[in-house]
Amino acid sequence: MARFAEKMVQLGTERSEIREAFAFAQARAAEVGPDKVDDFSIGNPSVPAPKQVGDLVKELVDAADPVQLHGYTPAQGDGQVRKALADDLNRRYGTDYDGDCFYLTAGAAAGLRIVLSALGCPGDAFVTMAPYFPEYKVFVESAGCTLVPVPADLEDFQIDFAAFQAALTPQTKAVIINSPNNPTGVVYSQATIEKLAQTLEEKSQEYGHTIYLISDEPYREIVYGEEPLPWVPSYYANTLVCYSYSKSLSLPGQRIGYVLVPKCAEGFGELYAAVCGAGRALGYVCAPSLFQFVVARCTGQTADIGIYRENRDILLNALREMGYTCAQPDGAFYLFPRTLEPDAHAFCQRARKYDLVLVPGDSFGCPGHVRISYCVPTEQIRRSLVKFQKLAEEYGLGK
Amino acid sequence: MARFAEKMVQLGTERSEIREAFAFAQARAAEVGPDKVDDFSIGNPSVPAPKQVGDLVKELVDAADPVQLHGYTPAQGDGQVRKALADDLNRRYGTDYDGDCFYLTAGAAAGLRIVLSALGCPGDAFVTMAPYFPEYKVFVESAGCTLVPVPADLEDFQIDFAAFQAALTPQTKAVIINSPNNPTGVVYSQATIEKLAQTLEEKSQEYGHTIYLISDEPYREIVYGEEPLPWVPSYYANTLVCYSYSKSLSLPGQRIGYVLVPKCAEGFGELYAAVCGAGRALGYVCAPSLFQFVVARCTGQTADIGIYRENRDILLNALREMGYTCAQPDGAFYLFPRTLEPDAHAFCQRARKYDLVLVPGDSFGCPGHVRISYCVPTEQIRRSLVKFQKLAEEYGLGK
Repeated sequence: MARFAEKMVQLGTERSEIREAFAFAQARAAEVGPDKVDDFSIGNPSVPAPKQVGDLVKELVDAADPVQLHGYTPAQGDGQVRKALADDLNRRYGTDYDGDCFYLTAGAAAGLRIVLSALGCPGDAFVTMAPYFPEYKVFVESAGCTLVPVPADLEDFQIDFAAFQAALTPQTKAVIINSPNNPTGVVYSQATIEKLAQTLEEKSQEYGHTIYLISDEPYREIVYGEEPLPWVPSYYANTLVCYSYSKSLSLPGQRIGYVLVPKCAEGFGELYAAVCGAGRALGYVCAPSLFQFVVARCTGQTADIGIYRENRDILLNALREMGYTCAQPDGAFYLFPRTLEPDAHAFCQRARKYDLVLVPGDSFGCPGHVRISYCVPTEQIRRSLVKFQKLAEEYGLGK
Repeated sequence: MARFAEKMVQLGTERSEIREAFAFAQARAAEVGPDKVDDFSIGNPSVPAPKQVGDLVKELVDAADPVQLHGYTPAQGDGQVRKALADDLNRRYGTDYDGDCFYLTAGAAAGLRIVLSALGCPGDAFVTMAPYFPEYKVFVESAGCTLVPVPADLEDFQIDFAAFQAALTPQTKAVIINSPNNPTGVVYSQATIEKLAQTLEEKSQEYGHTIYLISDEPYREIVYGEEPLPWVPSYYANTLVCYSYSKSLSLPGQRIGYVLVPKCAEGFGELYAAVCGAGRALGYVCAPSLFQFVVARCTGQTADIGIYRENRDILLNALREMGYTCAQPDGAFYLFPRTLEPDAHAFCQRARKYDLVLVPGDSFGCPGHVRISYCVPTEQIRRSLVKFQKLAEEYGLGK
């Protein structure tokens, strides 16, 4: 008999490259001073939550019955909170959701993990586009299923439909998309979403069972383009949305988000029940109650994303001028340029000579690139430019 | 290919008897008025959180950096928070924990679920004493293992060691105890803990592997006896503690608690890593940050448990006088008297004639009893006595 669950020991022991890079930056900052180190490793929002969040917290503490404010809500979330979230989406997207479509969760990670356990049967495959958030693999495998990554079109990081179609099989239970994307910052165009919907319709038909679409949308409100973000469930009925307020309201520590299961999704009744059952089986009792009440009253608000836009503009323009190649990042707070040598690890090591800390794309299933998290003070962006310039010069670019 | 995970659909569809009883009470209250219905079905703390909790929340919102206050903490919890929790236990129990023994969780349910995935290997059995909290079975099975319930001594609900020893096998990975107990309110005596420790030592020796002890302690601070509660890890080194602030600080909705893995536990390094890995695999990113900071500054505080004690005294004394048989409940906020007929469901149905809402012990793996959750206004306790009296008279008791 094994002492402990081997896989869990491994997951708890292995260090992600993101964490390793972050730890390096922290150690260097302690050594040479934080103003000498330009750490672009982690995706922790650098913009504070809107003032209204704090005001609401205080108001609720003063005015609400503490037994209710701090009490259990139903497992799927407070009824009035769910209704407020439905009303907000209906206003914005012309939909007709009601509160019973929502299951509140401890953030998008919990939501995604719950959805995977709700859908996943032994032998099922979940397809996603690489580069992808590394925890997808952990969550899918922990639900007893297989993750099938499909390389995106490396020019623009839209879906490479030839590769995507080739990856779909009768074992495909669902497809996971993440737009705006971590790590590329790329937003799927309406044309991409339309073609994705059409492909999934056809393949569902062909296989005789529904392929679900899981739209992981923690960056939904962090967008910079002219075009409004397509609302995915309006293009494909069998979409489950995993949302989080971590980035939009800069509340990542509070663990608050939701799963949305539209009633028109195939098998809604059983599917929603499976989501509730999976939440229960995974030990989620209810989403944190105080922040349920807070987010219900912050609909339509975001942290000041103008700061992220400014960071993106400065860094993207400068990098392109220096000769770096980078797909257009119209959302989230990441750039994903090509590395100036094929080995992204070697490139990142070279960057560290300048105390410039980046994460190799290999971590996201996409070698030959680096992720730059630009959710940092704008001052850091500006002072880092000379480092990126020197790095480019090492490879004969610039000048 | 099955559409959804069958077990999850079932878990999300089945209605617990506790929830069914609660729903009945709600429906009756709407019909005949809430003051006519005496609902003793659910274990939702009725005493508000200490005022200091609200004060601390407001102080943190005003004074702390919002990016830090609402930001991710490390997966195992903020370092200073963990140190504060260790210091508190060390002061109270003469232990020598440090912050690295703690893994903060979204309540005791999450903690227990995480520990089960950390320990559980295929084929493993987890033993617990019946009556037991029904989610134990859900959590153990969801971790891919088997729950083995062992009937407690029905006189006093201490451990029946003959039955317990007979239930241990080489497949036993761990034993789960819950003292003060839900649903009986019984507190394990020091003699029980000592004998339990001795039994586990001997059996670990016999089987050639450690049997771990999981001490699920959400009611640790809710005790009424003269004797201090034995600190379980001081009796048995291989104990993991799952704690929650849901009951002690009346914060069940905020989902905050911890797993404690003492460094002297066999295989500490791998075990703690497995706990971290399981938290990751189950989608827990970090425990809610605001309430991490709150509980660190509320060590030693509890909600006003004097109210629960008064409720217990009134109800226990009255029931015993009426002729009900009830083991001595020195903690939590439950009584678990014998029903006055063998079929607890029939007994509960009879009680409903008086709009007296109780939960059959069958739900907890212990027929012939009912759970009475006395975390209700004292006024409800008083007015319900005449109903318990009439119910007793139906069975020829009282007079």
